[in-house]
Amino acid sequence: MSILQAINTPSDIKKLNLNELPQLCDELRNFIITETAENPGHLGSSLGTVELTVALHYVFDTPHDKLVWDVGHQAYGHKILTGRKECFANNRKYKGISGFPKMSESEYDSFGTGHSSTSVSAVLGMAIAAKLSGNFSRQHVAVIGDGAMGGGMAFEAMNQAGETNANLLIILNDNKIAIDKNVGAMSKYLLHITASPGYNRTKNRLWNFLSGKNRNNPRPLLRFLSKIGNGIKGLILRGSNMFQSLGFRYFGPLDGHDVMHLVKILQDLKKIEGPKLLHIITIKGKGLKMAEENQIVYHAPGKFDPDTGEQIENSDVPLPPRYQDVFGLTVTELAALDPKVVGITPAMATGCSLTVMEQQFPERMFDVGIAEQHAVTFAAGLAVDGYIPFCNIYSSFMQRGYDQLIHDVALQELPVIFCLDRAGLVGEDGATHHGAFDLAFLRTVPNMIIASPLNETELRHLLFTAYRHRTSPFAIRYPKGRGASTLPLPPMRELPIGKGEIVKEGNKLAILSIGPLGNQASKAIEMLQQEGITPALVNMRFLKPLDETLLHKIVEHYPFLLTLEDGACYGGLYSAVSEFITQHNYDNKVNTIALPDRFIEQGSLSKLYAEVGFDAAGIAETVRQIVCM
Amino acid sequence: MSILQAINTPSDIKKLNLNELPQLCDELRNFIITETAENPGHLGSSLGTVELTVALHYVFDTPHDKLVWDVGHQAYGHKILTGRKECFANNRKYKGISGFPKMSESEYDSFGTGHSSTSVSAVLGMAIAAKLSGNFSRQHVAVIGDGAMGGGMAFEAMNQAGETNANLLIILNDNKIAIDKNVGAMSKYLLHITASPGYNRTKNRLWNFLSGKNRNNPRPLLRFLSKIGNGIKGLILRGSNMFQSLGFRYFGPLDGHDVMHLVKILQDLKKIEGPKLLHIITIKGKGLKMAEENQIVYHAPGKFDPDTGEQIENSDVPLPPRYQDVFGLTVTELAALDPKVVGITPAMATGCSLTVMEQQFPERMFDVGIAEQHAVTFAAGLAVDGYIPFCNIYSSFMQRGYDQLIHDVALQELPVIFCLDRAGLVGEDGATHHGAFDLAFLRTVPNMIIASPLNETELRHLLFTAYRHRTSPFAIRYPKGRGASTLPLPPMRELPIGKGEIVKEGNKLAILSIGPLGNQASKAIEMLQQEGITPALVNMRFLKPLDETLLHKIVEHYPFLLTLEDGACYGGLYSAVSEFITQHNYDNKVNTIALPDRFIEQGSLSKLYAEVGFDAAGIAETVRQIVCM
Repeated sequence: MSILQAINTPSDIKKLNLNELPQLCDELRNFIITETAENPGHLGSSLGTVELTVALHYVFDTPHDKLVWDVGHQAYGHKILTGRKECFANNRKYKGISGFPKMSESEYDSFGTGHSSTSVSAVLGMAIAAKLSGNFSRQHVAVIGDGAMGGGMAFEAMNQAGETNANLLIILNDNKIAIDKNVGAMSKYLLHITASPGYNRTKNRLWNFLSGKNRNNPRPLLRFLSKIGNGIKGLILRGSNMFQSLGFRYFGPLDGHDVMHLVKILQDLKKIEGPKLLHIITIKGKGLKMAEENQIVYHAPGKFDPDTGEQIENSDVPLPPRYQDVFGLTVTELAALDPKVVGITPAMATGCSLTVMEQQFPERMFDVGIAEQHAVTFAAGLAVDGYIPFCNIYSSFMQRGYDQLIHDVALQELPVIFCLDRAGLVGEDGATHHGAFDLAFLRTVPNMIIASPLNETELRHLLFTAYRHRTSPFAIRYPKGRGASTLPLPPMRELPIGKGEIVKEGNKLAILSIGPLGNQASKAIEMLQQEGITPALVNMRFLKPLDETLLHKIVEHYPFLLTLEDGACYGGLYSAVSEFITQHNYDNKVNTIALPDRFIEQGSLSKLYAEVGFDAAGIAETVRQIVCM
Repeated sequence: MSILQAINTPSDIKKLNLNELPQLCDELRNFIITETAENPGHLGSSLGTVELTVALHYVFDTPHDKLVWDVGHQAYGHKILTGRKECFANNRKYKGISGFPKMSESEYDSFGTGHSSTSVSAVLGMAIAAKLSGNFSRQHVAVIGDGAMGGGMAFEAMNQAGETNANLLIILNDNKIAIDKNVGAMSKYLLHITASPGYNRTKNRLWNFLSGKNRNNPRPLLRFLSKIGNGIKGLILRGSNMFQSLGFRYFGPLDGHDVMHLVKILQDLKKIEGPKLLHIITIKGKGLKMAEENQIVYHAPGKFDPDTGEQIENSDVPLPPRYQDVFGLTVTELAALDPKVVGITPAMATGCSLTVMEQQFPERMFDVGIAEQHAVTFAAGLAVDGYIPFCNIYSSFMQRGYDQLIHDVALQELPVIFCLDRAGLVGEDGATHHGAFDLAFLRTVPNMIIASPLNETELRHLLFTAYRHRTSPFAIRYPKGRGASTLPLPPMRELPIGKGEIVKEGNKLAILSIGPLGNQASKAIEMLQQEGITPALVNMRFLKPLDETLLHKIVEHYPFLLTLEDGACYGGLYSAVSEFITQHNYDNKVNTIALPDRFIEQGSLSKLYAEVGFDAAGIAETVRQIVCM
């Protein structure tokens, strides 16, 4: 008999006996495996938090109590238990539910997440709000991984929270792995805490006390805690404890897969006021052997066999390389050519393929952890000393290192090469992850060179061009996904900086494109030719410096211009071309195909392209409307 | 006899006997006081680091060894000792030397600073570069205050550094005060370390050992250190130590005003490999009684009497209020009206005048420390619960909270009110502090409302308008400095969102202005009228939503448009108007007065305005060139 079947909201969980919870966990885990096997998503993290999720909803009064999942990869169980079981088949799909917590989707999602390390700040805001409103009973819980805890923002929030008396429980979900293997001194430190036997002995004594007969009578418990006060440091936490330094009461480490024990501990912690941290140890991918054994791959494995875990390959046909592969291979080639080449990534070594370089040049590849701010200035420090840093940061995460890019790199004209993967629409990860704003926020910064390749070959050439240039910062943005050709990559070639090229001459209208959307434009032009419409296509390649020489030529021949960019409509190529036109007093009409001035939700790229008019049909239709007006 | 007089570079310091250093410190301190009394700058921080500065240049081989001053407020002594004594009278002046370390100014400035918490990342980059190059002897030193150490970026860097074997010395300059009194749990924790007697006893034993007879023979010393290894934690650092958790060897705390002791310790630390942290205790304003007693005021006191420290008032004439005063007063009024109003600042309570609100509503004013990322998401958390956060962040520091503004606020349409003080040119603080980019980087973000007032009265109205609006994020940018009128402020009034107004009708050319530069335009128009040139002036007030209704009217009457904004030329008002023109196929010519596409250095606002053409004369001249073409 299925327990999960009868769970529609957390109030149904609360009706269960404590000893029924392990079965619910098993069923929930199977549900996640079965659904994610068919409909790919973030598997590993959510398998690791099954017991925690059930325990939290059993103990806390959600949605009245506030529960925030940091990053949100791990919240599938939470979604399934909070009214989204039926629609979970539409997880990450177009018009379906988001792969991340989202306030507009459910009152149980207390705060939207997606980017890392935000949860402590958010629940602290809510906890302070409750205090100000005189609500002293509401609980505020953040679940944050050990990787995310290393993000500077989480530290900033812990630093403030520890000084308050806010009613806050931070659950440190320690699985020793973020998306890649976790790095940094704190990660080692957590391992040290976990492995220390003295620690565990004394800890167990406290847990027994906490979980024992005093549970229903909080007073002696509280008295005990306040009495031992500072003593806890010496007694339980021999040696240093970073979280106590930050003003938190520290509890743990605890087995995060023992749901009944978790429930007891959470019930106790509810009665303790002020900022608390519960450190639990979990296994990413728990319950699916292959996922436990290969945690990086099974972070988001694509389709797989729900029984064995075997990944299901989609195709036997050779596919063009992914842009990230071309980046990884090319940077590795450059590293082989020049010992000054270094690679830097904030926790995305696999996702950006710097792992390729790591295999050959481990001493020159730096995964700095979830630390975009630091990544940029660390790169700047290397550049000062003549090294050539390829700093790979996903476009939407570059927003985290923006000040450092301006203040530490551009202002000092340091030749850091920013490789912005996942630029433009990214598909299923949705609104938090689309790389929409980089063209705009980079263009306004002096000394920047900004380029985007038409295809994977051009990415290779641009990487080489940036490597050779070396007198100013250089940003290359390119999308998620695959290139156009299965042919072997050509030798690297230096491209002239700030020069675009006419891909195809035409009449009346010129499409001015930056990035791989130009390939959609080529298809659109083929479609239109049959109707006698013959737009030109210009691959601008560089947003900055803008190829004004080329533009002067273009405007003379084409009264209508259509800019095309996989980025926000304000501030990027459309703005640059409009400025050019008005500045030089040309009277060409300029239209644009770009991301509209609203956030775009999740879905397959093809559906999203259709929505915003990025596909060949959409581009063709826009051209028709302009030229047939 | 003056020792300082003979010091032109650090090599001259090295010629001194150890016991001459205290006199050099006295002279250097007096020099800083005398110069800064006449030529205002950051006094307090530099007085606190006199002994450290002398000791560092005595012990380390600068500029070969790398020395980075976090923020850089405290580096006046460093500048004076490294060849800039003669030109120090031009500190912070137009075409003079920068008030912050700057690579292009001196080889002794290993890395430019200005914004906080970047130093550890930068020296780590250099230290790793040295290792990669096989240079194992070069030293890498960062000096960072306790306030800056609370910034998330510093934590990120410490987290990576502690895992490396890089040759790194972080000097934690602990004076319990950043620009305002320091806040946060870490600050309390440092006090706890400092005050612990057991700590100091055992510490002294080690110091004696380190400073004693083994000093010239590093081997037994290193053997000793490696032998006691983990023992240090138990022996010296009873209880927790956050820095050791992060993989650093911790030394201190130490009196930062005992130059001879500092020299001995630094000489010893040079011989110890790997990441080390030396914790020194200093007094901000040391040596000038009034500065020691009122550290916030004497952070940057303006002109003062070098003997007594008395501040010298510039004027007896009543001056218009500063924009920050109007902000402080208005927010306090709103807080009195509505218990849901809260104020948030990342360590700029005095600078933004949230101290005014704090006096009346201390429980609703949150100084979160140097933590821009956290400040924004903390505000978002409060907004989720129906509070109305006025989040005051200087424009150039908003670059640090950009991802949070996009991901946590705008995407979730939370009504956080961003008050961006110090927008546009700020004068003497120079390139790192000009608020040049906010208009551009905010405009590209969906759901944002972006406004800038013409004068202090309009600031007041805009704050009220944002308070009333409450359905989306709202950014109000306003400059450093004073408003236009000494009259009492009028009652608050709601302004229509997205509506500008015609200040003055005219002919042929319309100046489209956002922000207080409109007042310079008014003066320019007066000048031009005598020449028969009569431009119109439009106060756009909102960058987003753009007042398209008004623009449609304007473009019909005025063939020439001139946008005017105290911000970068790409991405802001000029772009918005250009897009409008091309989109609607108007043939008006658009020119712009904006910050050029390069970084602007320091200097008085009047000189900088003249440089970029923001003053009335500059605006008039631009108008002349356009209409007389």
